[in-house]
Amino acid sequence: MHSDNLSGAVNQQERLDAYIAGFVDGEGSFSVSIQRNPSCRVGWQLRPEFHVSQNPERKVVLEIIQARLGCGIIRENHSGTRDTSLVLVVRRRTDLALRVVPFFEAHPLMSPKHQDFLAFADIVRRMDEGVHLTTEGFFELRRLALSMNGGGRYRRIHVM
Amino acid sequence: MHSDNLSGAVNQQERLDAYIAGFVDGEGSFSVSIQRNPSCRVGWQLRPEFHVSQNPERKVVLEIIQARLGCGIIRENHSGTRDTSLVLVVRRRTDLALRVVPFFEAHPLMSPKHQDFLAFADIVRRMDEGVHLTTEGFFELRRLALSMNGGGRYRRIHVM
Repeated sequence: MHSDNLSGAVNQQERLDAYIAGFVDGEGSFSVSIQRNPSCRVGWQLRPEFHVSQNPERKVVLEIIQARLGCGIIRENHSGTRDTSLVLVVRRRTDLALRVVPFFEAHPLMSPKHQDFLAFADIVRRMDEGVHLTTEGFFELRRLALSMNGGGRYRRIHVM
Repeated sequence: MHSDNLSGAVNQQERLDAYIAGFVDGEGSFSVSIQRNPSCRVGWQLRPEFHVSQNPERKVVLEIIQARLGCGIIRENHSGTRDTSLVLVVRRRTDLALRVVPFFEAHPLMSPKHQDFLAFADIVRRMDEGVHLTTEGFFELRRLALSMNGGGRYRRIHVM
């Protein structure tokens, strides 16, 4: 009985995780923006970001994902003047490296967005190792970021 | 060993189903359009439809959903002149009643889109019983269709 309960709980968790992977495959975005930042050694900054946008009446799904990943903030999107949508955003590097990346490694996306995730995971991990702090390393990761093959709304690379 | 394999297969199926539910919660649509049709007894027609749209490079997800549900066709969307997206559409009433509705009853959506699904399922079931063939029944189902609380892109009610 105890074993059945445990197994049921595990299955429920697995279903929730798979549901989140499916939802994020449709609505989520793994992006690495490249921004001018004179305070950085190389004058530029790589900023990996995971986000999921939704209309306000569907906020509950963002809250479910936020609770499961244990990180991120939910805020207004502000991507357009009449945009009232909300967005769950994770930018903190330790959260990306220790929570977001391992989650989607364990629960992979099924669309080609998975390729973007793999590049994203690679960049996050190598930033964690400090690779981006040298000029050579920065340009290596920048190349990787630019190779991300989104071409759609889930790619957001700003080269300034 | 055999039992482990079986259990693994069941889990894999459950994960796929949960993934599809998550994906459809974000990208899918349950709608009932109301159309003028002089050949129908009441002069109008209710047309329930399940659909999921995607960019062509993400067609594989539509194929996964189509294969799992065992119904629907994938075609070009044609919702705008420059629209190149694809859409998986299920309109056949027996497919909706015997495949789509039972699937999302077993794997419920977590957002308020679930409310739309419940109304959709109710309409599909009652059409299956022939409720819409009487004037009274038609207007009852029409009221239900108009009550669907999408208010967004996943609501598509045409009153003509």
